[in-house]
Amino acid sequence: MNTENIRIVLVRPQGLMNIGSVARAMKNMGLRELVLVDPVGSPGDHEVRIMAVRAHDVLEYAQIFSHVSDAVADCTWVIGTTRRRGKGREGTIDPRQMAEEIKKISQQNKLAIIFGPEDRGLSNRDLDLCQRLVTIPAHEEFGSLNLAQAVMIICYEIYISGHRKETPLLARRLATSKELEGMYGHLEEVLLRVGFLDENNPKRMMAVLRRIFSRAKLNDREMKVIRGICRQMNWYIKKTSLEIKET
Amino acid sequence: MNTENIRIVLVRPQGLMNIGSVARAMKNMGLRELVLVDPVGSPGDHEVRIMAVRAHDVLEYAQIFSHVSDAVADCTWVIGTTRRRGKGREGTIDPRQMAEEIKKISQQNKLAIIFGPEDRGLSNRDLDLCQRLVTIPAHEEFGSLNLAQAVMIICYEIYISGHRKETPLLARRLATSKELEGMYGHLEEVLLRVGFLDENNPKRMMAVLRRIFSRAKLNDREMKVIRGICRQMNWYIKKTSLEIKET
Repeated sequence: MNTENIRIVLVRPQGLMNIGSVARAMKNMGLRELVLVDPVGSPGDHEVRIMAVRAHDVLEYAQIFSHVSDAVADCTWVIGTTRRRGKGREGTIDPRQMAEEIKKISQQNKLAIIFGPEDRGLSNRDLDLCQRLVTIPAHEEFGSLNLAQAVMIICYEIYISGHRKETPLLARRLATSKELEGMYGHLEEVLLRVGFLDENNPKRMMAVLRRIFSRAKLNDREMKVIRGICRQMNWYIKKTSLEIKET
Repeated sequence: MNTENIRIVLVRPQGLMNIGSVARAMKNMGLRELVLVDPVGSPGDHEVRIMAVRAHDVLEYAQIFSHVSDAVADCTWVIGTTRRRGKGREGTIDPRQMAEEIKKISQQNKLAIIFGPEDRGLSNRDLDLCQRLVTIPAHEEFGSLNLAQAVMIICYEIYISGHRKETPLLARRLATSKELEGMYGHLEEVLLRVGFLDENNPKRMMAVLRRIFSRAKLNDREMKVIRGICRQMNWYIKKTSLEIKET
């Protein structure tokens, strides 16, 4: 992903706060190039700057044009965002597919993602400039996203497709079977001593404990913690039985 | 994904507009259950309602508590959102992993996703209530997301993991090799007639055309359109050559 080749274009944005929120969302996700087409105000307006928080540089370098065609004139790939699907909009993709596609395209091509005005979205004429359409999936009951929220989802998918690494959920190595069997032996010994397990059938309750610890997928450190508890209980049992004898 | 089991909890939210934007984002992504802990205002406040647009029902049913522990008391799985990673926060996952996880958990468990106040996020005490931590990946230079934007990304990933279907990018069947060869033969014939191809070496330019059409991956309809152009050109050549003879 070459983020320097990615331009976000807001076409006739109506809300000053939205423009600021868009700048913040872009900077959150590592994008810098904002272009405004016939906007309601100026990037320097107070309301815009408040919402941008620490993304003032995005606003400062934002370019302004009167027509969409000028805003994308130097781009070789133009992506339009639209809520509507249907005739003439076949091949509309979702933001994740879009991100995968522009990961390749952005290497050597300047590209623009254009967003329409809050109330009505991009016109058909705007969409004619696009090589690709993208729709953000949303619930049918209320599918109209706030403009800055829509930009955030697009920018987020772009960032993710360049940066995602799944967290390995098991950071430490798991306890080996031998270690676990040692732990279960230790546990059984202690639980027999304190009278928790039935001497005639200790395995029945041990099977329950085995299922719990299996599901928890103990790592080596946790296995040692359990053995530590067993050792401590053994020590306590020994101590108290001596005390009982002494009395 | 059982969305009825998913609760969004805002802990001490400071911005009225953020509360409204959160309600809208939730409804956009098919979630309904909002809980506010010690909020700055009321869900009925004007600023909140304006930003919620058509998500008034989310606000109407929003519950309010004084303490986080009460807000999640009936939940069996609590997810905390945090920007910080590090000691004691191993196993922090990203929103996509979270969505995959709660797809299973939500089937039979009530779960809560909790978000901290705008300025400082969740406290360590709040995080102690959580079984799972999630961090939204963001650019290191400015990783602080607007609260409603953060909620949107989380809700979006939940919606997507329940609904995503990749658009098949090739909706129609592609032209077969035989159809393509017929088309290339037709094209070569016409382009020879109009003198575009070098009679001594027509294949050189034809190879360029083949590469272009191969990359475009023509479907059957498009292949027929190209053949239609060839037929029309043939007709025109025949007509004009007759006219030239007649004169």
